Amino acid sequence: MSELVIGIDLGGTNIKGALIDTGGNIVSKQEIPTMANGGPGIVAGRISGMIDELGRRAADSGNNVAGVGIGIPGQPDKVKGEVVFAPNLHWHHVPLLSLLNLKKDLPVYLDNDANVAALGEQWRGAGRGALNMIMVTIGTGIGGGLILDGRLYSGTTGTAGEVGHTVIDPQGPQCSCGRRGCLETLTSATAMVRMAKEAIDRGRVTALFREENLEARDIVIAANAGDDVAREIIEQAAYYLGIGLANLINLFNPDTIVIGGGVSKAGPILFDPLCRTVVEWSLEAPCKAVKIVPAELGNNAGCIGAGALVLQS
Amino acid sequence: MSELVIGIDLGGTNIKGALIDTGGNIVSKQEIPTMANGGPGIVAGRISGMIDELGRRAADSGNNVAGVGIGIPGQPDKVKGEVVFAPNLHWHHVPLLSLLNLKKDLPVYLDNDANVAALGEQWRGAGRGALNMIMVTIGTGIGGGLILDGRLYSGTTGTAGEVGHTVIDPQGPQCSCGRRGCLETLTSATAMVRMAKEAIDRGRVTALFREENLEARDIVIAANAGDDVAREIIEQAAYYLGIGLANLINLFNPDTIVIGGGVSKAGPILFDPLCRTVVEWSLEAPCKAVKIVPAELGNNAGCIGAGALVLQS
Repeated sequence: MSELVIGIDLGGTNIKGALIDTGGNIVSKQEIPTMANGGPGIVAGRISGMIDELGRRAADSGNNVAGVGIGIPGQPDKVKGEVVFAPNLHWHHVPLLSLLNLKKDLPVYLDNDANVAALGEQWRGAGRGALNMIMVTIGTGIGGGLILDGRLYSGTTGTAGEVGHTVIDPQGPQCSCGRRGCLETLTSATAMVRMAKEAIDRGRVTALFREENLEARDIVIAANAGDDVAREIIEQAAYYLGIGLANLINLFNPDTIVIGGGVSKAGPILFDPLCRTVVEWSLEAPCKAVKIVPAELGNNAGCIGAGALVLQS
Repeated sequence: MSELVIGIDLGGTNIKGALIDTGGNIVSKQEIPTMANGGPGIVAGRISGMIDELGRRAADSGNNVAGVGIGIPGQPDKVKGEVVFAPNLHWHHVPLLSLLNLKKDLPVYLDNDANVAALGEQWRGAGRGALNMIMVTIGTGIGGGLILDGRLYSGTTGTAGEVGHTVIDPQGPQCSCGRRGCLETLTSATAMVRMAKEAIDRGRVTALFREENLEARDIVIAANAGDDVAREIIEQAAYYLGIGLANLINLFNPDTIVIGGGVSKAGPILFDPLCRTVVEWSLEAPCKAVKIVPAELGNNAGCIGAGALVLQS
C-alpha cells in the first residue's frame, strides 16, 4: 500500500481530477463539465463526487489517499477554506470546503490556479529542480505563479504573482483592471488580437484581414507564413513581454522562468525576439542566472500541481 | 554570560560596527573611516580590527560572540565569501572573508546592504512583526530588500530586490544601467535634482534657482515652503514611485512596505500623493493588505540588520 494524492483543477468549463503518486505521476484521470451555471452547491457536489470516485480507485488498487489539493480560478482564503472571488464562476465568498462535506480526516488544500500550475511545472515539468521559478501564463490575460526558495510564495492574503497587472507603460492601453499599460494590455492573446484589428483599421495589407473570429494562434500561423503585420505584432508583444520578464528577473533573480498558455506554443518566432529583449533590458548578473523555457505539462499542470499542494503542506 | 552578535555596515565612506544582543539592542558601537582608497587589504584590516575590538568589549562584559554579519555596498558571493562587485569601493571579486583572517570558529555572513537594512527594519524598526516586507531605499539610486514568508529573500545569485531597475516607462529617461525609464531615473534623489534643473532651464520661476549644489532635500524644503516647481517635482516623483510600489504590491502582496533613505524624511508632502497613486494603481485586495511606512532605524539599520543575518543563518 502506498500514499497517493488527489489533484483537482477547477476551471470555468471543466473540472479535471487526477490520482497522483508521490513521484508526480498520474495514476488515474477524470474530466467532467463544471456546470457553473448551476451555482456553487452543484459545482461542489460534482467535485466531491469526483473525489469519492478517485478515492475508490485508490482503494481498489490497495492505496491510501493522503489529501486533496484544489486549484481554483480565483482568490482563495486558505484559512477559511473559502473562494473569495472567482470571476469565471461568478463566485463571491463561496465556502467551498464546507460545501464539499468530505470526511473530516481528509486534508484539503486550496490555491489559485496560476500558483498550482507553477507548482506542477516545478515538480514534473519545465521547472524541475528549480529553486526560484516564475511561471507566466499567457492567454486571454496574463497570470503568474511564484516558487521562491523552493516553496510556493502566495503573499499576505494569497494574491501574489499578478504579473499581468504590473504597469510597464503608464500611458499605455486601458486595462480591464481599470489601470493603464499593464503587461496584460501589451502582450496577452487579447492584446495581440487588438493590435491586429488596429493594423487592419489602419489599412495595412495582411492575411489576417480575412479572419472573422481572429485568435492569437491565427496571428502566430500568419507570422510563421511570412505575413509582415503578424510578424510585427508578435515582435511587439515579445518586446513588451521581454521588458516585463526583465523586471521580474531584476526583482526576483530567478533560476527559471516558465512560459505557459496558448501563446507559449508560438516557438522561435516569439522566443527569439523575447530573449533578445530580456538580455537588453535586464541586469547582467541575474540575466546570466536565468533560463526561459516553455511549459511542458500543458493541461495536466493544474492537476499535478494541485497534488503537489498536498505534499508541500 | 549571554550570546551577542556583531553587525558591520561597510559603506563607501565609513565602516560602522555594533555589538548587538539577541533582542536587537545595540550594546556598543564604533564608527571609523573606510579608507577605500587604500584598497581591499587595508579595508579588510580595518574591519577585522573593529571585529576584534567589539569582541573584546563582549568578553569584558562576560559575553560570547555568536557570529559576525557584514552588509556590503554591492553583490556578495555568499558561498565563496567574496564581494563580487561593489562600485563605491571599486571592488571586483574581492575575497573578503579570507582577507579578514578571523578565527575559524567564528561564523561570518555577508549580504548586500539593502537586504541587511531590510532585515534590520523588520527586526527592530518600521517592519516589526512583518512577514512579507519590502524595503525601498531612496537615495542617489533606489535599492530594495525583500523579506518573504519571514525570511530574507535574495534570489538565485544574491541579486534579488533591484527595485530601482524595474522599468516603468520604456520611453523614459536614460538610466545609469544602460536601460531607459527604470524607477531610479524617475523618482530617486538624483531624478528629482534633474527635474529641478530641467525646470530651471525652461525658465520656470522657483526658489531652487539660487541653489548651487542642489540636493533633493533642498527641493523638499522649498516644496514645504510653498514653491510651485518644487511641489510639482515631488508630486511627479511620488507618482512614479507610487506606480513602482503598486507593481510591487501586485507582485508580492506584502503586508508592509518600508521607505528608507533621505527622501523618506520628506513627510506628508511626499507620502500623501504617494499613497493616492498606490491606491489608484494597485489591485484592491493586495492594496488593502499593505501599509506603507517610513523607516525608523536610520543609520543603525545596517548594523542591526547585519546582526540579524547571524541569527537568521
